Amino acid sequence: MPDTTTLTPPGTLLHTGKAKSVHAVENPDERIIDFSDRATAGNGEKAAEFTGKGEVNAAITYRLFTMLAEHGVTTHLLKAESATQHRVHAATVVPLEVIVRNIAAGSMVRRTGITPGTQLDPPIVEFSLKDDDLGDPLVTTQHIGALNIISSAELSTIEARARLINVLLRENLAKANLILVDFKLEFGHSLDDGRLMLIDEISPDTCRLWDADTMDVLDKDRFRNDMGDVMSAYDEVLQRLNAADIGEGAPA
Amino acid sequence: MPDTTTLTPPGTLLHTGKAKSVHAVENPDERIIDFSDRATAGNGEKAAEFTGKGEVNAAITYRLFTMLAEHGVTTHLLKAESATQHRVHAATVVPLEVIVRNIAAGSMVRRTGITPGTQLDPPIVEFSLKDDDLGDPLVTTQHIGALNIISSAELSTIEARARLINVLLRENLAKANLILVDFKLEFGHSLDDGRLMLIDEISPDTCRLWDADTMDVLDKDRFRNDMGDVMSAYDEVLQRLNAADIGEGAPA
Repeated sequence: MPDTTTLTPPGTLLHTGKAKSVHAVENPDERIIDFSDRATAGNGEKAAEFTGKGEVNAAITYRLFTMLAEHGVTTHLLKAESATQHRVHAATVVPLEVIVRNIAAGSMVRRTGITPGTQLDPPIVEFSLKDDDLGDPLVTTQHIGALNIISSAELSTIEARARLINVLLRENLAKANLILVDFKLEFGHSLDDGRLMLIDEISPDTCRLWDADTMDVLDKDRFRNDMGDVMSAYDEVLQRLNAADIGEGAPA
Repeated sequence: MPDTTTLTPPGTLLHTGKAKSVHAVENPDERIIDFSDRATAGNGEKAAEFTGKGEVNAAITYRLFTMLAEHGVTTHLLKAESATQHRVHAATVVPLEVIVRNIAAGSMVRRTGITPGTQLDPPIVEFSLKDDDLGDPLVTTQHIGALNIISSAELSTIEARARLINVLLRENLAKANLILVDFKLEFGHSLDDGRLMLIDEISPDTCRLWDADTMDVLDKDRFRNDMGDVMSAYDEVLQRLNAADIGEGAPA
């Protein structure tokens, strides 16, 4: 098959997500991810802009992805292209959201009635279809098999990878006095050699993070639940990662 | 611990479900299940009465449970107490609905977007919490572990039991020219010795059954989807089980 991606002019917008966009570059195996200031919640029902959010989330993701890479986790990150942009390996996206939960909160509490704040030991890994029209529904591993999304062997690999990432994130965020309640991951296969990679972002948009002393909420729940001070919470997370020197800082 | 169940007078109504009720009898390790003519759908939002449904469902369940027992599946059924009543072993109910799917239909289609009618090979086993307030939500095996409902070993046993029951039902319903699309099972632990038992019912209220030639719907979807001829469909299922001599007929 001819590689039609080589025909895509650099800069072409390939995909617009709720908070990021993906652009072509001259190398067909690479992409630019642009972190925007947009925030949405409730599958897009609630939307706002927070000045500086794109830059803060790009910087947080840069620190956490480089930390994970130091521990052998393959990610799509190549380099920081600008304050709000990552240059990454192009990927075919696995159309699943992988949610890891250390403490019961959010949709798991609404779904199961479990007491909020329950420690989940072992942590729980959930899969949701990446499908806005269906509302990103929770699915079981058997559903994923029936839908022919990925093989059960690769699904096991993804679950194990997510559990490793959870341990690494928990340990490192603890150094920043942050409790990792839960978070969402996405994975993809590299366009050039097909290897499984962590893609997307890890930021207060995609995690629940609490201050380890005060239990203050330092994540997107401040936006979802109209708690105010959204950007100061996100800034606080970045400052703590910088102070604890988690991973690498993005070049200025 | 004193056995307080011995203090319950015979005939006492112990539980009222959407289509059945459970009554105490003189023996504290036994119960009477009464099949009513009530039908509900959409978690009780839609309700109706169908004269004779209780009797037909009791007779269908009797035939299918005795067929399963002939093949070594432990059920709660002791005997037919009347045309609408089963005498059963008392059980502590496992608060899960176990759904087995051979063909994609209903909530799985709405949830995942899979094409209706897709053959599921292997069949899919889903678990939902038996919790009307939460809308009987789908849960994963990891959720069930976090909720401490049953051990993962016993959950595996239940899934394997459900898969065996599916094979036995499919084979036997095929003799009645019926396709088993999907069905719901419930399990419990015997009050007397704790063994795992199939409880509840297997009837057109809890299965999707299609005519193998015409694909006519012969189950509760006729009620859910306002297709009419509900009781004639249920009667047809019973007549076919009688004609094919599946399991034992309930004594007149």
